[in-house]
This record gives sequence, C-alpha cells and structure tokens, in this order.
Amino acid sequence: MAELPTNFIQQARDILGPKGLVQEPEQLAPFLTEWRDRWHGSTPLLAQPDSSQALAEFVSLCAQFKLPITPQGGNTGLVGGQVPQGEILLSTRRLTKVRAIDPKAMTLQVDAGVTLQQAAEAAAEHDLLFPLELASGGSATIGGAIATNAGGMGVLRYGNMRDLVLGLEVVLPDGQLWDGLSSLRKDNTGYDVKQLFIGSEGTLGVVTGATLRLFARPPTQITIWAGLERPEHAVELLAHLRGVFGEQISKFELISETSLELVLDHMHDARRPLQSQTPWHVLVEFGLSDPHSGPDQVFSALESALDQQMINDAILAKSQAEASALLALRENISAAQKSKGAAIKHDISLPLAAIAEFLQTAAEAIEQQAPGTRFCIFGHLGDGNLHYNLLQPVGMAAQEFLARRETITDIVHDLVHARSGSFSAEHGIGIAKIGEMQRYKSPIELALMQSLKQTLDPDHLMNPRLWFESAAQDKKDV
Amino acid sequence: MAELPTNFIQQARDILGPKGLVQEPEQLAPFLTEWRDRWHGSTPLLAQPDSSQALAEFVSLCAQFKLPITPQGGNTGLVGGQVPQGEILLSTRRLTKVRAIDPKAMTLQVDAGVTLQQAAEAAAEHDLLFPLELASGGSATIGGAIATNAGGMGVLRYGNMRDLVLGLEVVLPDGQLWDGLSSLRKDNTGYDVKQLFIGSEGTLGVVTGATLRLFARPPTQITIWAGLERPEHAVELLAHLRGVFGEQISKFELISETSLELVLDHMHDARRPLQSQTPWHVLVEFGLSDPHSGPDQVFSALESALDQQMINDAILAKSQAEASALLALRENISAAQKSKGAAIKHDISLPLAAIAEFLQTAAEAIEQQAPGTRFCIFGHLGDGNLHYNLLQPVGMAAQEFLARRETITDIVHDLVHARSGSFSAEHGIGIAKIGEMQRYKSPIELALMQSLKQTLDPDHLMNPRLWFESAAQDKKDV
Repeated sequence: MAELPTNFIQQARDILGPKGLVQEPEQLAPFLTEWRDRWHGSTPLLAQPDSSQALAEFVSLCAQFKLPITPQGGNTGLVGGQVPQGEILLSTRRLTKVRAIDPKAMTLQVDAGVTLQQAAEAAAEHDLLFPLELASGGSATIGGAIATNAGGMGVLRYGNMRDLVLGLEVVLPDGQLWDGLSSLRKDNTGYDVKQLFIGSEGTLGVVTGATLRLFARPPTQITIWAGLERPEHAVELLAHLRGVFGEQISKFELISETSLELVLDHMHDARRPLQSQTPWHVLVEFGLSDPHSGPDQVFSALESALDQQMINDAILAKSQAEASALLALRENISAAQKSKGAAIKHDISLPLAAIAEFLQTAAEAIEQQAPGTRFCIFGHLGDGNLHYNLLQPVGMAAQEFLARRETITDIVHDLVHARSGSFSAEHGIGIAKIGEMQRYKSPIELALMQSLKQTLDPDHLMNPRLWFESAAQDKKDV
Repeated sequence: MAELPTNFIQQARDILGPKGLVQEPEQLAPFLTEWRDRWHGSTPLLAQPDSSQALAEFVSLCAQFKLPITPQGGNTGLVGGQVPQGEILLSTRRLTKVRAIDPKAMTLQVDAGVTLQQAAEAAAEHDLLFPLELASGGSATIGGAIATNAGGMGVLRYGNMRDLVLGLEVVLPDGQLWDGLSSLRKDNTGYDVKQLFIGSEGTLGVVTGATLRLFARPPTQITIWAGLERPEHAVELLAHLRGVFGEQISKFELISETSLELVLDHMHDARRPLQSQTPWHVLVEFGLSDPHSGPDQVFSALESALDQQMINDAILAKSQAEASALLALRENISAAQKSKGAAIKHDISLPLAAIAEFLQTAAEAIEQQAPGTRFCIFGHLGDGNLHYNLLQPVGMAAQEFLARRETITDIVHDLVHARSGSFSAEHGIGIAKIGEMQRYKSPIELALMQSLKQTLDPDHLMNPRLWFESAAQDKKDV
C-alpha cells in the first residue's frame, strides 16, 4: 500500500478538520472487518467529514490526486463492498442529522449517516412509520441502505429502498455536490437521475442526504403463525390472504422446520408456536385499519385456509408480547445458524411459481454433493426471496464443507438462473458475487452498466474493487 | 424533408413487411396531429413492426443510415414528444399481445402497444387490478406510459408507472434488443438499468415489452364528496383520513368551484353533489377490505372532519351509480374547459404545505396580468399535483389571452420553482417545456442527463427534438 502524498494529507486535514482524518491502525481496525468475517481490509486513511460540503471537497481532492475511495456507512454490508483493499476509506458516520420531518406530507429528510433505527424513531415521534427494517438497523445507515437498495421484511407492503426515496443529495466522483433533495411524489422533468445512485453500491457517487417517504402506522397489528406441509401451500396461502387483505399484509415469511429447530435450540426460553410439527411454517403480520373487525377477518381467512388444506394449523398472537415472541423466532435464525458450524449461504429470489420445484431439485442436487447437509431455509416468501442457507452436515469438518462452496453455489445459482430467478435478491454484489455477474448477466446489460460507470466515473475512483469492472472486462474477452 | 435513400426503403420493407411500412400522406395524417392541436408533424415514413425483433432490426437499419426516429405509442402525449418533425415515425401499434399473466405472483407481461385499458381488462379477468388509469386509457399504450412515467388518479395508492414496472424489453438506439423482462420483486444484481428507459420519453431507446405489477382489487369501494372553504383544509383532511385509513385511500382529488361549475354546465344531466356551495371540493375514493365496517368507518371519519371544521359538508355515494356520477364530475373537467375558450394550462406539483399559499399568490399575480381570468384548478392533491388551468376572461379574444402565455407561464412556474415544486408533475417535457428545462433544472442535473444521452445515443437518433439537447447546450453557453 503506497504512502499518500504529503500535500494530499495536508489538504485533507484542512478540509476534514482534526477529527475528520484517522490514520492510526488501532483506530482503523473496526472499519476494516465486516461481520461475516470473510473479508479483512486495509486503508491508508479514514476520512470522516462532518458535512456534505466537506465530503464533496474531500472527494474533489481525491479526484485531483486520482486516489481511489471506498465509501462506508454502518459497515453492515454482507458482500464485502464496504471493506477497502488499500483505497482511502470514506465514512459517512459523522453525517448524523435528522434534517427535517413534514408529518402532513409524510416526508423525512436525513443525513446519509443516520441509521435506519434513528430514521424510524424520528418518524415514530410523529406517529408515522419509516418501514425499512433490517436486523442491523441499529448500525445500518440510510446512505448504505440506498447504495445497496436494501429490502428486509417490509418489502411486501412498503417496497425496497428505491421505492422509499423521493430525493437525494449526492457527491459525484469528481467532487461536485448535487442537491436533488426533492420531496415531490410526482416530478417528470427529464431523466430521473437519482435512480443511478440507488443500488449502485457507491460505485457512481456517494449519497450524503435523502428525502424519504413515510407511512401511516396501521392502527391494528395482528401476527399469526401457521404450519404447512409443502412450500407450494405457502404460495397458495399468500394468494388467498391477498385476496382478502390486499396490501394490508405487512410481512409474509417462510420458515423451514430445520430453521425453527435451530432457533428453538439457540433461544433457550423460546417455545414452539404450534403443538404439531410440520415441514414448513409461515409468519404473517397484518397491519389493519379496523381494530374491531380485524381479528375476526383474520380468523375467518385462516379457517378458510384450513378448510382448503393450505395450512395444517395456525395461531393468532393474543398480545403484543406473543407477537414479538413469534417475530423473534424468525429474526434469530441467522444468529442460531452461526453456532452450528460452517454455512454456505445464498440470497436468492425466484418467481413464486418456481419456488417449490426449485427447493425439491436443489435439495436433491446438494444431497448428492454433501450428504447430510442441513437446509436452513427461511425468508421473505412474499417477494419470492429466500435465504437459502446450507449448514454443514453434523460431524463433517468445517473446512471440508467450505471447500465445496464454489461447486455448491454454482449448482444453486444455476438452478435459480434457469428458473428466471436472481442470485442476489437483496444483498447486492460487492466483491462476493463478481463471478456471478460474469456467469449470469447478459452481455447487453453488463455493457450498459460498464458504459454508465465509464460516464460517471471515468477515472474509476469510486469503489474500484467492485463487480462490474472485471465482469464486463471478462465478458468482453469471452 | 429529404428523401429517404432507396436502398433504405427496400431494406425497411424487407424487415417490416408490406403492412409494416406506410408512406401515403392520407394514411400518415392521423399520426401527425395530437389532441391538444398544438403541434402538427411531418414524416417521410411510418414504420409499424409487428414484433420486437422486427422493431430492433428496423432501428438497427436506421442507425446504420444515421436516420433519426420518433417513437409513438397511442399518440396521447400532451407535450408533443410523439409528433415527428421530419424524423421517421416508429409506431408500436402492432405490438398488441398480452403475453402472460401470473395471478398468484400478480404479474402481467405485455407488448408495448397494449393499451392501459387492455392491460386493466387482462388483469380484471383474474379479478386483479392494473391500477394505472388515465382518461386516455383506451388509446394510451403501456410503452408510452412507461416512456412518460405516467401518473393519473391512482398514484396516491399505487404509484407512478415507474413503481409498477418489474422488467422491460427495450430496443437500444443501436438496434440491440435487450431482454430485461424479469418478474422479480427483488433483484440487486448490478445497476438497475431499466430505470433509464422509464420517463425518458423515448430518447434512450424504445420499450417493446414490459412485466407489470398487479394488485388485489379492494373488496369494497366507497366514494365521498366533500365541500371545503380553503385549500389548506384539503391538506388537513388528507392527513386526517390517512391517519385512519392509511394506504387504503385510492384517490384524493381536489376540484375548485369554478371547475365544478364548468363541468355542470357541460354535462347537462349532472347534478351538484351537495346543496351548499363551497369554494373547494374533494372527491375521495376508499378501497377497503371490510365491506361491513367500511361505511361506518368512513362516516365516522367524516363526522370528525366536520367537527374539526376541515369540511363544511359531505356525502357518501350510496350506490355504484352514484359513485360513478361523482367520478364523472372530476373526469370531465378537461373536456368542459375546451368549450369555454382559450386556456393556458399547467401541470404542477408542490410540497403539500406550500399549496394554499401558492394558490393565493399565483391568483393575485395572474389577476394583475389578465383581470377576469377564470381559474380552473383541479387534480391529484394527494400527490401534490394540480392541473392549474387558466381560462380566458369572458369576452376577451382568445388570441389576446394566448399572447400572454409565456409571461403567465413564467409567473406560474417561477412561483412553483421557488416553493420547491415541479413544472411538469406528470406530463413530461416533450417539446413543450424545453425552455423550462433551461430555466429551472440545475446545471449538474442537466449535465448528468446530457452525459446519459451521449452514452446511450451518441448519434442522437432517438427523438432528437426533445428537451435535453438544447437545454444542456444553452445552459453550457450561459
């Protein structure tokens, strides 16, 4: 890692102030590891400006010196995009202002470094809802969630981050500060350029601020847990419930029995929701406007689902505490997996009609590869998105299982791709899925991405380690 | 208008087939006028391919010969973007297949030439809702609605066209056919390049197919009409109703008394909804899931609004026929205006908090300009979008009023811009608002648009008459 020029550091110090520039290794260390512990980074300098203007000036300085930058929000990304490998690390952690809230218009304007949890709290003070929830929401930032087009459990009802952004403030790779912070729901005045910076993982610019949509809190929340025989029944149940409740379904999560067993084992005071055991479970949360008729409507819909044999059994949570306990079972699956051995994880989405057959076919193929693999499958079935996580067979050495990672992941992603699914439903590409970009994206699409990158960041200074670079290059060479 | 090269016409005929190529002036005429009668076009050739593949080959041919193209859907655009001025006219009118519908996944795949009405009918066959409704929906096409990011009355609940598109099939300016027809709700595999082709008015490529989101039909529809003293009460009422009904409000439309008078005069058997006369009215449509408690909830919310003096009076439609009659009052305002003289029209959006003061200030300024101007104001208040249409004073010569168009429009748009609003909420730019792009868009944003255009269409063949070209050019010269 080459030394940074002295005059660069001096000018950086002038722009960032004494607190805005860090170079001591012990202080840098937390920013250089991520929580899956798969990647470890290095950087000559952490820049943490305390204003959008300072951030813009700093990026401009880097552009002058042609020094590459890795932007970082809350360091909760799951695909390694935020971990520098020698680039300057640019953190938004000091951009923490909740700038404005307009309760009547239902809009919220924040700095990019505001966490998802802080945004939700600011909305809740006015009895409004900022609906993007991630397990990492205490650390994950709005800017990071925009850069990765984060999803979570609320997408079914409220959409991805892209659907929640009304306007952005962005620092472009050349250091220009673009104020596109509109709060308008309707504005067709030329190309919607903010779309470029959503889901592009910091490769086209750095988001420094955003105007977000808020929603009314549904007056009544009802949570149910149901047991099912087969995954296709979950798809039927979703259609059935949508026919009654429309967009009032706030969450629709699938949980495999294996996943439930893991989390029951992990959380010692958790209890199985139903007496009966079934191969599959769904957790459904309804957000209804009528507290009086709500429970009856849900009960009636479940009875109908029972009659049609979509579900074997179900319970309605009778209190907020019961509802939270059910949700906790779903929320703690990831943590429960960690203690059980090595895992090969996938974040896939599929057309709903393809899910059941995919699960069958994939299970057979993986059983052949590594007999005894434990299938920890759970996720946002409402959006067709499953966390398809494979736990090592009991008794197999972790390294032996992980040695098969590439083979197994190719099998899974090939099956997904053949069924018009996605190999990265919500986590993004980062450095983790560069190979998949080559393998699965069409040449036309890769060429379009490459041309956008070339247009906005011709010097390739923004997050240069990320996917599209080598992907497009290799595709061209093929 | 130069003659087209003979070998071009020959190759075009081979690609398009005999029915796919029209050059006779009488046959071309309907495609060269638009319904506001403001622009009249000319073209040497209408190409109407019957497949995406043929369309791609034709665009490729045009690219080879460097011949510019104006794409056209249903010819219902309101800003002149679809009217060629010497370019080849490329119509999607023969791309009319409803390709597939998946009722459980709630997705619909169509050719770009399918009309909004046909899409809605295809969805309704499975008791599902395609929610984008425009008055022109019998002619307006899905492709055109995508190119213009169309809105309409349903945006409050269901979003703009951008929110309804899951995937696109697009012919790029060089003739490549990109199949991006995903039906996935969640897919974070690189840049979301389909966003480029939504709302870019045919300047970056031609949409030939789309996968769209469908919704459950709300079981119960309740329509109300309320009379109000002041526009700020409408904003209060919206917040009040959202607090009770959340996203179950399907439409929230503002209608000025002047607009109502015009439409009552125009539709001879229409009746005033309320006994009392008020300066403002709102029409609200609720889509509720509970047929039993719905009417009571609405009634109760209206009573509360009365108590708080947000509204003076209100009625609930007691039948579908009554509801349709109320909606017809709103839907026929545009037609009612036409017979009353010359009009200067604006399609604006504003932050909700700014609307009341804007209406006051703008009225005063325009009264100074043209005393006696009639203010025909109506529109999608829920989204902050108003059709701010000024009818000539009674007795003034039409041309005298229209001679003030530029002055008046500058006044209106300057006021809107100063309040962080938009000069084109839903209609787009076309050739009508090229001057506004110069006047109101930031240089950074124009430069970004220009660079996108340069990247995707370096030969400037796609819709070259449109806004960004001269806008960016002039801005640079300033």
